[in-house]
Amino acid sequence: MAIKTALTETFGLEHPIILAPMAGVSGGRLAAAVSNAGALGLVGGGYGDPAWLRKELSIARAETSRPWGVGLITWAITHQTVDLALSYEPHAFMLSFGDPQPYVPAIKTSGCALICQVQDIGDALAARDAGADIVVAQGAEAGGHGAARATLPLVPAVVDALGPTTPVVAAGGIADGRGLAAALMLGAQGALLGTRFYAATESLGHRRAKELIVAARGADTRRTTVFDAVRGRKWPAPYTGRALRNSFLERWDTREEELAIALDTETPRFRRAEKEGDFDTVMVWAGEAVDLVQDVVPASELVRRIGAEAEERLRFVRTLLDDD
Amino acid sequence: MAIKTALTETFGLEHPIILAPMAGVSGGRLAAAVSNAGALGLVGGGYGDPAWLRKELSIARAETSRPWGVGLITWAITHQTVDLALSYEPHAFMLSFGDPQPYVPAIKTSGCALICQVQDIGDALAARDAGADIVVAQGAEAGGHGAARATLPLVPAVVDALGPTTPVVAAGGIADGRGLAAALMLGAQGALLGTRFYAATESLGHRRAKELIVAARGADTRRTTVFDAVRGRKWPAPYTGRALRNSFLERWDTREEELAIALDTETPRFRRAEKEGDFDTVMVWAGEAVDLVQDVVPASELVRRIGAEAEERLRFVRTLLDDD
Repeated sequence: MAIKTALTETFGLEHPIILAPMAGVSGGRLAAAVSNAGALGLVGGGYGDPAWLRKELSIARAETSRPWGVGLITWAITHQTVDLALSYEPHAFMLSFGDPQPYVPAIKTSGCALICQVQDIGDALAARDAGADIVVAQGAEAGGHGAARATLPLVPAVVDALGPTTPVVAAGGIADGRGLAAALMLGAQGALLGTRFYAATESLGHRRAKELIVAARGADTRRTTVFDAVRGRKWPAPYTGRALRNSFLERWDTREEELAIALDTETPRFRRAEKEGDFDTVMVWAGEAVDLVQDVVPASELVRRIGAEAEERLRFVRTLLDDD
Repeated sequence: MAIKTALTETFGLEHPIILAPMAGVSGGRLAAAVSNAGALGLVGGGYGDPAWLRKELSIARAETSRPWGVGLITWAITHQTVDLALSYEPHAFMLSFGDPQPYVPAIKTSGCALICQVQDIGDALAARDAGADIVVAQGAEAGGHGAARATLPLVPAVVDALGPTTPVVAAGGIADGRGLAAALMLGAQGALLGTRFYAATESLGHRRAKELIVAARGADTRRTTVFDAVRGRKWPAPYTGRALRNSFLERWDTREEELAIALDTETPRFRRAEKEGDFDTVMVWAGEAVDLVQDVVPASELVRRIGAEAEERLRFVRTLLDDD
């Protein structure tokens, strides 16, 4: 038994689930584990560090014979980054946060499916017109970078705007089979999950960060730009990142101008904290769905569990119709 | 054919849909029309103006013999308000934004079902413990007042926290049958809709406000406190109101301290604008789901349409399972 959608048909998946390409967290091992379990694993290439990409894309390619892919932050990358990633022959290439157009020819020529993640209707139309094979509509409840619109009203609006020929996948606030089933009801062809897979055994996330995600509640997360500021990551508007609240965030969240002046001391402190795994300073990107993340388990178990729960919900809720 | 849930069973409804008690907009005629169509209409008593309540509750009682109810803003009301509303013998009493406890005995003694609207897990548990028969979990994408959490991840977290004995209804970002079906997948027993019914023929909303809702996109809405400030409504934290952007909002949104000083001139100007129906100054409360609101039609047509679309989605998505 499995759920069949345009997403599963495109890649021959057993479950309409995509691993979010979380920068530095979705490594080759996690992506391969998700793909081997019948979903689509995407390596989180982030800002495009070549050494990291070479290592993790090699692992993904070696560890699965199923479709897998890579995701990059569009505004941060170059044609060289895209060519490097394509040289590992991914089946899917996801671009998020910025104009995908410059990179579309290389990706489409390679035969790779182009997935564009967007945060509003205008960018969804632009992605379709640029040649996206799949559009991910991401809501503000997502962990890590995103924008302002919420998933539940955004997804059906994007589905209506794009029409029936471009499959839409929902992202943001989904961590279990209930959320996946809800996404299908909204007209999405599947769901992209980040935070839930951050706490997978195979993710490259720090052990302590995974523990914090398991312990956290959705109300403990907040969208902010302070972690980008201290790391010198020049994110353009309107993007902010959702992370667990910690001391660093509490200290600087309303004082960003002061932080800008204090970077000479704050940035080195932050870099040390990264090396030490000090998550009272360093961010743990996490979405509002952390309430639903209660264990660290292998990715294969997560894919199986989420798929089975979604199927159970589709069956059960159908029985609420009294013509049954 | 209809969808059966704990919500429909409680009130003998044909559709698991509740009309949000939008202050001053959900009048007796709209509430009765929703109830007559087989959903649950709630009169929007807002801050508890006695003359308005007497008029609209009389209309609701006169115009429907089906279950109907009333909703009030908890922090703004008194025992007298509650007693006045109860004297019209509503079947449901909804309290939102504040501690419901002081009013629970009177409501429960009257035999009225108590619906508590909450915005986080802690308040959901408090509402259950106070005796709520139904808990509405409201996300930040909702129009009008609300808080920070998004509907899609909040609803399953509240369902898990409350356990199986307290029915949960989803609110915020839902304006069609897809959203209702998604709410059911999340474990909710129904959905509460505001913005969609604002643009119903029978709503007390200004004709021009309804036109603005039909024309607006979700990205045109924003959460703010400036409209409360200029009206002298002392909303406690963490509540803000989501409205369509207009000139007043653009002018004051980042300058609330200056607005506080300018109230002597701004408040009379605002009151004049209210009389004149000048929505470049006065707010139109609206949720992010305005993208899905494209016409002004009778409430009965909306209930029928939303119910039928939800049923169609439940049937259709069930067929994605390949054991069909």
